[in-house]
Amino acid sequence: MLSQEMISSHPDAPSEPVEAIVLLLDEAATCAQTCLACADACLAEDAVPALTHCIRLNNDCADVCETLTRLLSRILGPNTGVQRGMIELCAMTCEQCADECDRHAAHHLHCRLCAETCRRCAEQCRITLQTFI
Amino acid sequence: MLSQEMISSHPDAPSEPVEAIVLLLDEAATCAQTCLACADACLAEDAVPALTHCIRLNNDCADVCETLTRLLSRILGPNTGVQRGMIELCAMTCEQCADECDRHAAHHLHCRLCAETCRRCAEQCRITLQTFI
Amino acid sequence: MLSQEMISSHPDAPSEPVEAIVLLLDEAATCAQTCLACADACLAEDAVPALTHCIRLNNDCADVCETLTRLLSRILGPNTGVQRGMIELCAMTCEQCADECDRHAAHHLHCRLCAETCRRCAEQCRITLQTFI
Amino acid sequence: MLSQEMISSHPDAPSEPVEAIVLLLDEAATCAQTCLACADACLAEDAVPALTHCIRLNNDCADVCETLTRLLSRILGPNTGVQRGMIELCAMTCEQCADECDRHAAHHLHCRLCAETCRRCAEQCRITLQTFI
Repeated sequence: MLSQEMISSHPDAPSEPVEAIVLLLDEAATCAQTCLACADACLAEDAVPALTHCIRLNNDCADVCETLTRLLSRILGPNTGVQRGMIELCAMTCEQCADECDRHAAHHLHCRLCAETCRRCAEQCRITLQTFI
Repeated sequence: MLSQEMISSHPDAPSEPVEAIVLLLDEAATCAQTCLACADACLAEDAVPALTHCIRLNNDCADVCETLTRLLSRILGPNTGVQRGMIELCAMTCEQCADECDRHAAHHLHCRLCAETCRRCAEQCRITLQTFI
Repeated sequence: MLSQEMISSHPDAPSEPVEAIVLLLDEAATCAQTCLACADACLAEDAVPALTHCIRLNNDCADVCETLTRLLSRILGPNTGVQRGMIELCAMTCEQCADECDRHAAHHLHCRLCAETCRRCAEQCRITLQTFI
Repeated sequence: MLSQEMISSHPDAPSEPVEAIVLLLDEAATCAQTCLACADACLAEDAVPALTHCIRLNNDCADVCETLTRLLSRILGPNTGVQRGMIELCAMTCEQCADECDRHAAHHLHCRLCAETCRRCAEQCRITLQTFI
């Protein structure tokens, strides 16, 4: 996996495995992209007036996930407080977005796929936090 | 002020004043830009080996401030948990960046200006949190 | 102006004035924020079905303007081809967004303010391109 | 593939295949993340004074690739001029970053991996442009 190879080639690469961080990097990048796609698909639905809160949470979630991937890409020197705070915030944001997308999952496939993706990302946030030093 | 006018023209504009949010929007946008400029200026210094941690924190701080401006620009529906979390994280990130920039402020004007900007943004985060519903 | 001070404190600061770049930095940051606010305000309007294309262009414009401020913040070494290309793209994006916002300006103050901001940013892109080496 | 499923679930999904856009979405997201990781790894090298231009191009390339993924995620209504311009700019930026990373590929594995990733993304930009309506 490229993310793993990049971390291993870093002069400050941790000696212990960082599988949890690598998995989160990839989940968060996928989640950001899925949320952006869901926001745009919601906007194209006839039912858009019922989906405005979903669009808003999609956009918040995309921004938070994207910033998490940026912060986790940097392993030079310690900045674990900020990284930990961002992972916690990402878990909360993904769960809120998943809850809202779930409300529309029966009618819109994009909302169902997005809810699933947000749940996976939130779960990986929780797992990574447990292994986080 | 344009940020204030934009919020006032929003259908869900709050009836009470939102001066604290508008001020934070502008401080965070300024701080993001200043941190990016400081990172690039540090990279151009002969003393770059002593400034790598500063560059890293500058980049983290720019990403966090930028995302805060994105989240605060959205006032449709309630998402105050995520906004509050992001403001707290921004205060922490700005303070860490200011501490590191301060260590180089005597030698590099860009670090001194950046430290001051980060302190102002962190302070506005704290003020805004107190008024945040 | 802080943007000007930050550029002047850069080891590679150009000897000739860079007023056009500083003005563009500030216009693009303002435009990004205004477009995000307009997208969220449009989403809150009862007339949202008529505003979906406006929301989409607002979001594109915010992303492009934000990236322009990131690229222009870096003056270490030459990368003028990419900067020039990004300024041209920003002018085009702002003009398209302004055209769409103008169509709703009579009904929505946020669209009128956003159209004006996009026009100013596009115009500053054109001015800056003429002085760009 | 999730990106393909999300596009297919969009009310405005094109009837013809969009494989080239889906592949570019994924390449650009990977490239953004790889460039951020390479910038941070370069910063941690003892040879950082020789790598400052590489770091700068890494950061530019990450920003441009990330914005491309944002623009390509939106398929509501036509905005092909901006998308086409962004793909062309991304190809140029990736090629410049790859050229610089190649200069350090023999000494730093992260630069070799990043150069390869940037070349793949640039190539996919060129392929996608040919199929782009």
